[in-house]
Amino acid sequence: MLAEIITIGDEILIGQIVDTNSAWIAKEFNLLGISIHQITSVSDDREHIKEAVTKALATHDLVLITGGLGPTKDDITKQVLTELFKTTLVLDEIAFQNIKSIFVKRGFEILESNIAQAMLPENCTPLYNTCGTAPGMWFDINHKVVVSMPGVPYEMKAMMQLDVLPRLKNMFTFPVINHCTLQTSGVGESFLAEKIKAVEARLPSHIKLAYLPSIGMVRLRLTGKGSDEQQLAQEIEDFKNELKDELGSIIFAEGDISLAEHVCELLKAKKKTLALAESCTGGFVSSLIVQIPGCSECFMGSTVTYSYDAKEKELGVKHETLSKFGAVSEECVDEMLQGVIRKYHTDCAIAISGIAGPDGGTQDKPVGTIYIGIMVNGKKIIKRYQFEKHRVRNIERAAMAALNMLRMALEQSGI
Amino acid sequence: MLAEIITIGDEILIGQIVDTNSAWIAKEFNLLGISIHQITSVSDDREHIKEAVTKALATHDLVLITGGLGPTKDDITKQVLTELFKTTLVLDEIAFQNIKSIFVKRGFEILESNIAQAMLPENCTPLYNTCGTAPGMWFDINHKVVVSMPGVPYEMKAMMQLDVLPRLKNMFTFPVINHCTLQTSGVGESFLAEKIKAVEARLPSHIKLAYLPSIGMVRLRLTGKGSDEQQLAQEIEDFKNELKDELGSIIFAEGDISLAEHVCELLKAKKKTLALAESCTGGFVSSLIVQIPGCSECFMGSTVTYSYDAKEKELGVKHETLSKFGAVSEECVDEMLQGVIRKYHTDCAIAISGIAGPDGGTQDKPVGTIYIGIMVNGKKIIKRYQFEKHRVRNIERAAMAALNMLRMALEQSGI
Repeated sequence: MLAEIITIGDEILIGQIVDTNSAWIAKEFNLLGISIHQITSVSDDREHIKEAVTKALATHDLVLITGGLGPTKDDITKQVLTELFKTTLVLDEIAFQNIKSIFVKRGFEILESNIAQAMLPENCTPLYNTCGTAPGMWFDINHKVVVSMPGVPYEMKAMMQLDVLPRLKNMFTFPVINHCTLQTSGVGESFLAEKIKAVEARLPSHIKLAYLPSIGMVRLRLTGKGSDEQQLAQEIEDFKNELKDELGSIIFAEGDISLAEHVCELLKAKKKTLALAESCTGGFVSSLIVQIPGCSECFMGSTVTYSYDAKEKELGVKHETLSKFGAVSEECVDEMLQGVIRKYHTDCAIAISGIAGPDGGTQDKPVGTIYIGIMVNGKKIIKRYQFEKHRVRNIERAAMAALNMLRMALEQSGI
Repeated sequence: MLAEIITIGDEILIGQIVDTNSAWIAKEFNLLGISIHQITSVSDDREHIKEAVTKALATHDLVLITGGLGPTKDDITKQVLTELFKTTLVLDEIAFQNIKSIFVKRGFEILESNIAQAMLPENCTPLYNTCGTAPGMWFDINHKVVVSMPGVPYEMKAMMQLDVLPRLKNMFTFPVINHCTLQTSGVGESFLAEKIKAVEARLPSHIKLAYLPSIGMVRLRLTGKGSDEQQLAQEIEDFKNELKDELGSIIFAEGDISLAEHVCELLKAKKKTLALAESCTGGFVSSLIVQIPGCSECFMGSTVTYSYDAKEKELGVKHETLSKFGAVSEECVDEMLQGVIRKYHTDCAIAISGIAGPDGGTQDKPVGTIYIGIMVNGKKIIKRYQFEKHRVRNIERAAMAALNMLRMALEQSGI
């Protein structure tokens, strides 16, 4: 089966939003063993939408469309599909009741533009929206399928999971596919490639290896296609183990798990607690941990001390330490570590202080100088990092470096 | 001029990364008055890349390609373009020196795969990479331009800004365009549409209005195309003022500024300071503020009290308040507000406590129940919000709601 995603919206083509829907849909398809063949983004323009859908239908069995179903004037997907498939709009009673109930719940009056959202092409199968007002549409067109869904990500996701994916599973036969992802942290892409080049050279043509770098980490993904499920799983397993042998502790986990999630799991498994003292990262490390359900088992709290004053009062950093060495120093981070452990009585701690930029650098400590300290059961490590000039990226890199230092120490501590 | 972006990479089509490059490039082009006509994502497959570039060249004057220039085996963009444009690869001395200097700086040994990155097609103009090893390529093909850039976002961005955009400005004539963005917070898309439907009905065909919703806010964007720069600017200005009259304080700012940035600017203008007490948002509000350069002028610090214990010890929340009303209550948030103001001696504060989910809800307080309190110069407002079931989205919505409460209070306080 060949599938294409078409995302509709001027906001994508003028760059005011990032299309995250495609990646999410592609991921779900990938789990079913189908690679999306192409993703095409087009404008809110009648002719452009028609052309894109027509072209996609010429070479693909399945066309998934998102966007353009909202209540406002620039949303024209439904009208265009109605014209293209030569049908007419009729009121769908279930969609109408759904819209009404949403407005009653929110205590808002129902608007004309919302009633228009309940009008659907006569020849489509309605896909009811469990999270919003705009229904989706499923069209069967000459043994091919066109699905139109809202562009609001959580509405589209619910519609895919509850309705579209189950229908597709009934309709198409999916090939045998096997994936395996290894998560690495702390080294770059070319270093990894050099380390595993012998393994890579032995990969057969039906198994591919991809390097997926993001800030502070590289994911390695093995993907195999075949016909014998068990044999393919064994092959992937064998190559995965070869990669693990070569890379050792550079790999922190298997599967799609974040570094923060892995650190939480390690802490929980070892029954250890964590507190944070953040200066330049401003609560970002803390927010990464709190995104994980169940983190309250291991995470006690965080103190964001963005000023000298707060560092002294909240964490007991000495005034003379700040005046002698500055807030961005090994000495300050050391006292921040001690202070946060005293405060929260935890087994582990992270302390971060640096110059995130874009200003505030000096010759000795240019923008991007960040000190990170960790403590695991009384054992302390403090490192100086030199990142670049971009504030948000420096914050993200410092957060990843800190989490990686903590996970290495936890893994090596033998506790 | 018609332009297309092609992003290359299996990782996009299987959904392991989100293509953020296209949005960034589209935004830059939009500032120049050019809408990207189409964005196409294709796999790391020789034939698919050739087909996409050939099709794009048939109908577009400019084709911008990102991805597939890395040092690893799955990176084949350069080889494919070399074949397609019937040329050969030769060593580029400047690119080679750049790669060498990066490896010397990092203290790593240079690898064979990195040397191969300095080989470039003979007929291209090299685009040197100031942030990484892979050079980009500029091809002039029958009065059309093909630009190939690395997929790593910050490498691509630097190459665009330093090299590609200046070259394009010299080469093409750009039309007169005028944009204006109004940022709104606290109400939904259809409510906005209803409020401004009379203005919208009066818009001429060369001015478009788009609704761009994201969590907790909707941006309204007016885009006009014309030939007379001054006249167009005046028309956009007039419609902008009509929208501002209709929407009043629902609009928090003009232009591409985040709510956190706007709050920081308000605080600085009013010479007020802020501290935060975060429970379920876990430092996320704090991290949004610390992302803004210069926030140290108004932001004092944040205390993330994720446990009952930390709420008592760090913020002085009474034990009986927690046992009687629970941590997710107006009473607890009230005491958190008082505690954080005592701690940081600020003029303003935000306190948040809620059940982010996916578990932990009760009948009275289901998942998504979040209490948000703000204090501005001694004046306190506490509200109960009911969001949905998704943990990360609840955290984001709570953060936006809190920032919006604070900005409304700051705007209305008359201080």
